[in-house]
Amino acid sequence: MDIEALRNAHPEHWSKAAAIRVLTLDAVAAANSGHSGMPIGMADVATVLFEKHLKFDASAPNWFDRDRFILSAGHGSMLLYSLLHLTGYEQFPIEEVKNFRQWGARTAGHPENFLANGIETTTGPLGQGIAMSVGFAMAEAMLRGQLGKRLVDHYTYVIAGDGCLMEGVSEEAISLAGRHELEKLVVFWDNNNITIDGTVDLASRTDQVARFKANGWHVQEIDGHDPEAIDAAITAAKKSGKPSMIACKTHIALGHAAQDTSKGHGALTNPDQMAAAKAAYGWTAPAFEIPAEIKSAWEEIGRRGAAERFAWEERFAALSERKQAEITRRINGEVPPKLASVVRALKKQHAEALPKVATRKASELALEVINPVLPETIGGSADLTGSNNTKTADLGIFDTDNLKGRFVHWGIREHGMAAAMNGMALHGGLKPYSGTFFCFTDYARPAMRLSALMQVAPVYVMTHDSIGLGEDGPTHQPVEHLAMCRATPNTLVFRPADAVETAEAWEIALTQTSTPSVLSLTRQNLPTLRTEFKAKNMVAQGAYVLAEAEGKRQAILMATGSEVAIAMEAKALLEAEGIGTRVVSMPCFELFAQQEESLRKRVLPAGPVRVAIEAGARMGWDQWLLGERGREAKAGFVGMEGFGASAPAEVLYEKFGITAAAVADKVKSLL
Amino acid sequence: MDIEALRNAHPEHWSKAAAIRVLTLDAVAAANSGHSGMPIGMADVATVLFEKHLKFDASAPNWFDRDRFILSAGHGSMLLYSLLHLTGYEQFPIEEVKNFRQWGARTAGHPENFLANGIETTTGPLGQGIAMSVGFAMAEAMLRGQLGKRLVDHYTYVIAGDGCLMEGVSEEAISLAGRHELEKLVVFWDNNNITIDGTVDLASRTDQVARFKANGWHVQEIDGHDPEAIDAAITAAKKSGKPSMIACKTHIALGHAAQDTSKGHGALTNPDQMAAAKAAYGWTAPAFEIPAEIKSAWEEIGRRGAAERFAWEERFAALSERKQAEITRRINGEVPPKLASVVRALKKQHAEALPKVATRKASELALEVINPVLPETIGGSADLTGSNNTKTADLGIFDTDNLKGRFVHWGIREHGMAAAMNGMALHGGLKPYSGTFFCFTDYARPAMRLSALMQVAPVYVMTHDSIGLGEDGPTHQPVEHLAMCRATPNTLVFRPADAVETAEAWEIALTQTSTPSVLSLTRQNLPTLRTEFKAKNMVAQGAYVLAEAEGKRQAILMATGSEVAIAMEAKALLEAEGIGTRVVSMPCFELFAQQEESLRKRVLPAGPVRVAIEAGARMGWDQWLLGERGREAKAGFVGMEGFGASAPAEVLYEKFGITAAAVADKVKSLL
Repeated sequence: MDIEALRNAHPEHWSKAAAIRVLTLDAVAAANSGHSGMPIGMADVATVLFEKHLKFDASAPNWFDRDRFILSAGHGSMLLYSLLHLTGYEQFPIEEVKNFRQWGARTAGHPENFLANGIETTTGPLGQGIAMSVGFAMAEAMLRGQLGKRLVDHYTYVIAGDGCLMEGVSEEAISLAGRHELEKLVVFWDNNNITIDGTVDLASRTDQVARFKANGWHVQEIDGHDPEAIDAAITAAKKSGKPSMIACKTHIALGHAAQDTSKGHGALTNPDQMAAAKAAYGWTAPAFEIPAEIKSAWEEIGRRGAAERFAWEERFAALSERKQAEITRRINGEVPPKLASVVRALKKQHAEALPKVATRKASELALEVINPVLPETIGGSADLTGSNNTKTADLGIFDTDNLKGRFVHWGIREHGMAAAMNGMALHGGLKPYSGTFFCFTDYARPAMRLSALMQVAPVYVMTHDSIGLGEDGPTHQPVEHLAMCRATPNTLVFRPADAVETAEAWEIALTQTSTPSVLSLTRQNLPTLRTEFKAKNMVAQGAYVLAEAEGKRQAILMATGSEVAIAMEAKALLEAEGIGTRVVSMPCFELFAQQEESLRKRVLPAGPVRVAIEAGARMGWDQWLLGERGREAKAGFVGMEGFGASAPAEVLYEKFGITAAAVADKVKSLL
Repeated sequence: MDIEALRNAHPEHWSKAAAIRVLTLDAVAAANSGHSGMPIGMADVATVLFEKHLKFDASAPNWFDRDRFILSAGHGSMLLYSLLHLTGYEQFPIEEVKNFRQWGARTAGHPENFLANGIETTTGPLGQGIAMSVGFAMAEAMLRGQLGKRLVDHYTYVIAGDGCLMEGVSEEAISLAGRHELEKLVVFWDNNNITIDGTVDLASRTDQVARFKANGWHVQEIDGHDPEAIDAAITAAKKSGKPSMIACKTHIALGHAAQDTSKGHGALTNPDQMAAAKAAYGWTAPAFEIPAEIKSAWEEIGRRGAAERFAWEERFAALSERKQAEITRRINGEVPPKLASVVRALKKQHAEALPKVATRKASELALEVINPVLPETIGGSADLTGSNNTKTADLGIFDTDNLKGRFVHWGIREHGMAAAMNGMALHGGLKPYSGTFFCFTDYARPAMRLSALMQVAPVYVMTHDSIGLGEDGPTHQPVEHLAMCRATPNTLVFRPADAVETAEAWEIALTQTSTPSVLSLTRQNLPTLRTEFKAKNMVAQGAYVLAEAEGKRQAILMATGSEVAIAMEAKALLEAEGIGTRVVSMPCFELFAQQEESLRKRVLPAGPVRVAIEAGARMGWDQWLLGERGREAKAGFVGMEGFGASAPAEVLYEKFGITAAAVADKVKSLL
């Protein structure tokens, strides 16, 4: 590339873009790790976007109607940090840039949304950014539908690389975006033809332009180093009426010795090569120093959106106080007081009617009373609407002609669904929940981990939660999935035993603002076990005594979900033989672990034999079975050792030995 | 649809296809569960495929050079079972069909490869079949390259539905197939425009024809009920020189009252509607009875390939005895005796040289001696070749002009990679192993679960296995992934401590025939701890005493991988204070759990304080810490509670308190 020709063609643009390039080189060199090539390659696109199009105000990073900028190719984090520093975000002084990738810095190796304002989302696991961006754009459309264009009207811009586009989740995302004609979503593809292993051709010859077109997108192809072409393409994208992909032909590590090579992807720290690149850029300032006129030009960009923000704030201030408070409540993720009261009323009703329903149905019953009082909930299902029971009567279907619709037909796209829920949750103003079969947690897993890591609170409604689903067989029967979810930090895993616990679990899940919830729900009917109405949310304790021993307490049975009823039957068998047996329902390990030790000891006192029952793997139970330091009790487990099988549910419970009789025998063998 | 016109147009074809349709109706009705619509809709395609094209011999279902038939839309399992019964597979008498979805039957709800011959693979989780089929077709191409066209020359045929094509993994698969021009792969898309929630349009408007073309496929669009069009399309597909997709416009539940509706997807059991459908089909025989002339026509199809098989067997018999034995060995998945000897020699070398290398590098050193003696290994990486260290000097790159190449550049497609490895393993004759970062186990997870469930033995080389990867931060730092893998039944999870254990782990992993292995390997260098050469494979024991207490044994430290060195340092600190400390290396929980109880007790005797160290979640450790029945020891854990962070590795170990000093303190607090 003739860098000098590029510089001379657009000198003012070039000096601004060069600032990104040299900050990237300097920060990566200081850290002696990181990814230099992508920020250098995409600096022109980012400069034009921020200078001419992105609606933002660096002094108000959380302005609700700002455009969102998603760096899906998260390894190029120095692109984002450079922009945040240059445009004057308070949390990104030059010291942060100097501390790139160090302990305690906001400039982590990959962008982490929870570390600073201006970072809209964590990215790094490839494909997640583009998939979340669909959720951002859907949230914008939904809120525009609900609150009107005067309050919500912004774009979502994404930079994605070849890695993002090779990941399967990108197909789920772009297909969804095409289906919903998300016209305010603009994706820049960093078409540099390089991945870590070499040229893209080593692994892919997919015609990305044709692929996006096949998914209903508006597509343009431009020179990603030509600021005029970039500007024109963004302008055209915004007018296209469709989601828009701009294929930007770029040179990775432009102007560096490693340009156009896979070496250019990583950390470019050779001092001589750095010096040569800076010279090519016409850059003479010392490391980490930005000449004043360039910095001030960037800061002007950072202030560009202020007037628009003030106008928006005036429009907001003109709303009624009640409306302002309601929108603020939703942006903050707070639930209305009515949530507690409708859940309480439902519990009362259940304690009287004693419904014998599957917990997936109980979940629907809860949503039927919750959705009308929480206009921010957005439901959905990955093509299992009638099975997941996530659609309530009043939601309406989200569609191009019904932006107010609050139920999303996600299609058979569990991963894209979970990622889009993350995007919605990050956007703010909405509380997404959606369902699939619990076993297909596997498909959604990369995005579910990100929910927990990013500290957002979508609700995963995972039905058909065990061998209890029966004939569909082991591919559909979760065994290790409770352990997998419970092992994940910052995740609440609920396995409610009946309709009352299900309602309580929903109340807790929707009250979270920084922790995702997984509701593991049965296909099969279960009796109501919480027959006595209690206003208190017992699930919030994590585990509690559901039924006390009648005789001398010799055994404690612990169970979750569908197995609590089995524990109650086993208790009856044992009590009939004079063996006093307590039953502890444990709908949420994580909440129980948060309780005071004294309370935990009251629920699980040392001494009696302990047997846990769960139609899943034992892993995770030992902490409660064996006591937190061991030595507390003789213990046993009744559950699954291998995968399930195809047969009617009741046959499977019998064949796999998860029965009241087996539990009673296990207790007696330990006494 | 005018069924009668269809019948009259091709009466002989129609009666054969009708047999599939009525068996499906009868079996689903008997089970009162299952999916009727898809087998009924795709019966014509399947009939033509089996009658005119599929190379198979029902009496020799494991004939190595048969064409493979993959039912990716696995819920339509009655299509497959009908075909296996009708063509005369010994394991599929009518009793099996009558027992559809019942305990112990081979006719499980979804096809399960391990239940019977003729079922090439488990399917049901959507997208997996089409993704595995790419592995089948790659295996065919590789073996054709290695062994020649006279021994290996067959097609892989796939039936996929809209669900398969919406799942993101399908994009990874079809992009890979296009890149490698897998000309012997033919996919039938059951284009019936129906999913469970309704018409496809609810969730997708993707132009699938354009999408496959964008990925380099040959594509045709046909009427899926016209046997002549089906036949012509298959003939054209075989000549296309590319992977070929045939879009088959079909009617789900053709001829039934539920035709063309989402209700038609599920179990059609209404007796009157069944009777009406059978009448429309011109079918008068009682339930489960196939008129003799129709059955015999099908059985003739089942014998159609016999001559071709005999000819193949003659060609095989003409090979040298040594060559025959070698091919048979590979088909059976047996390793050559040389594997043990090269591993032993490498261990000896390590015990002398005491290399200080990362276990990912140790893995490469092992592969450097293994790959030359195991021509069946196929390596690869999801665009992290230089990081996963999976490519050895002699492999060569698999490509269109180098079918003998044994290394695959999978691209950034962890899920597609894992699924393709499953396909290769199911095909037989190859031992696939491939790598990515351990954290991206998340992406590969649905296919990794299937490896275990299907009882195949690919090796997952998962490097960068903890916070030890450093600056890339929490999105790249596995915390819960060891627990997730260990909770999965039938999976060997290895976390070797040094170069010697890594070599031993490889030997065990490659010796497996029905259990997948996960090798969790470090980015950072580790000292050789197994300084004394032992011929015995100690990793095979799962856990063993690496260093005995010097003074009176007061503590046992248990650790895996990079934390074993920390345990050794902690031992030194403790012994210096007179606290006798045993160090147990636990590279594989699953193998240790399989040992005799007496051995386990010798390794982990009751009494001394136990502290486990692992840079991951505690979940899974309690069984060893607290003893199998609890009460055995005071215990503690040094590891991770939350997610990691971005900083240099040594800083992270310090900040998260995973240090020798912290371990020693933990021991002392428990004494």
